Amino acid sequence: MTRRQDQPRGGRGRGRPERDDHARRQGASDRGAGERALLYGFHTVREALRAPRRELLRLFATAAAAERLADEIAARKVETRIVEAEDIARRLPAEAVHQGLLLEARPLAPLDLSDLPQSAFVLALDQVTDPHNVGAIIRTAAAFGLDAIVTTERHSPELSGTLAKSASGGLEHVAIITVVNLARALDELGDLGFQRVGLDSEGPASLDETALSRPLVLALGAEGKGLRRLTRERCDTLARIDLPGPIKSLNVSNACAAALTIARRRLAE
Amino acid sequence: MTRRQDQPRGGRGRGRPERDDHARRQGASDRGAGERALLYGFHTVREALRAPRRELLRLFATAAAAERLADEIAARKVETRIVEAEDIARRLPAEAVHQGLLLEARPLAPLDLSDLPQSAFVLALDQVTDPHNVGAIIRTAAAFGLDAIVTTERHSPELSGTLAKSASGGLEHVAIITVVNLARALDELGDLGFQRVGLDSEGPASLDETALSRPLVLALGAEGKGLRRLTRERCDTLARIDLPGPIKSLNVSNACAAALTIARRRLAE
Repeated sequence: MTRRQDQPRGGRGRGRPERDDHARRQGASDRGAGERALLYGFHTVREALRAPRRELLRLFATAAAAERLADEIAARKVETRIVEAEDIARRLPAEAVHQGLLLEARPLAPLDLSDLPQSAFVLALDQVTDPHNVGAIIRTAAAFGLDAIVTTERHSPELSGTLAKSASGGLEHVAIITVVNLARALDELGDLGFQRVGLDSEGPASLDETALSRPLVLALGAEGKGLRRLTRERCDTLARIDLPGPIKSLNVSNACAAALTIARRRLAE
Repeated sequence: MTRRQDQPRGGRGRGRPERDDHARRQGASDRGAGERALLYGFHTVREALRAPRRELLRLFATAAAAERLADEIAARKVETRIVEAEDIARRLPAEAVHQGLLLEARPLAPLDLSDLPQSAFVLALDQVTDPHNVGAIIRTAAAFGLDAIVTTERHSPELSGTLAKSASGGLEHVAIITVVNLARALDELGDLGFQRVGLDSEGPASLDETALSRPLVLALGAEGKGLRRLTRERCDTLARIDLPGPIKSLNVSNACAAALTIARRRLAE
């Protein structure tokens, strides 16, 4: 996967800086001593095993679950203890759906905007709050090989539960960069040479006809509200997805999928 | 909107045939006498007012809600009674989120596969059950101007509640054709001259490179399971969406949005 070579070097990881925040990542719980993240659930653990950037400590797995992930476990040579499902459940909150898998790992270190590579393609989410949607967006971003998602500390859903399940392992591959002020982050990305495109159903340009180049940030607004004025003003271009039907807007994660499909083609041209 | 001219003539409507089934349509309840559907909620009522195919009886609206939809109400000349919110609530189930709007209308008549126009573009859903996803798919299908969604009577979510909210009015514009057997429906569509393309993450062809022509049916499978064998066998082509990132599958509604983005471009070429 060549995109990994685009990632910043130096042992930096991805995610949010603070332990408490990190504990809220995708099916992750950080109870217990030291710098240790607990990852659980099939997709979450599988993707953590596959992602090379995370330091793994040890895996607790039922015999059946270890069998399902035998290839991944062998490839990463992670210390694995075969246990009963109850042993895993005892280490997690009552409602946790662990599917027979619990991985102890080091938390991912934070990533700054300035760490992004010159070939970066990232999303900026402007107060998108629905966890189903944010989860699906993270999954889709991972599928399209995006480098990061920039989001605000406030007005963003917790990176756990429904969101983590909807992300389906995508959180292991796409850095979540949380910022205090999205407009200021777009200023900084502009200074770093990013082309800033805001998706706006009433935008003057069609995304299909917009020339795109990396580094690139695509800003998505919340449903109904769209991009806030300060966000729109920071964009170099406001572009729409042309929709031929009688309904003129898409669910935000569907809009993301359509936009990335178009952007991918335009970037390859 | 020229696509409406592609619709079948003769006063036929859209939706499911039986009164009881119809009552389950998007925020619709059919309690009370005769052939009467009750539609409620802002998006649902707005789209019913905008869609020319539904015969409207009368609208109950709060003063504020009537103000919001003043243009649509004037354009359709529907008899409107300004009432209090409690008057509307009294006519609906306790949990109904009516947003000050209740429209009495004639139920939509059923549509058969053979009613579809020669220029049709439809989706076939193979046991896609999550109501968030099916709702988002209906909305996206309406945004891309699709004619219908073919789905099985069993293994489909009810066309109400979460699904209707996620569809955001799309149910008024896209016919839902329910069939007993999806493989047999694909046979029939084949006999009617439809190109049948199944979306399959391991399909031999890239959808990007697949020649498409109308009438066209695109089959989508459930997450994890994909298309069933009998469905796959009925497709003329199995096509994948090329994903450059480390996660190799999309949420089904996101896959639908990506596929329709590609298909729309290919059909226009």
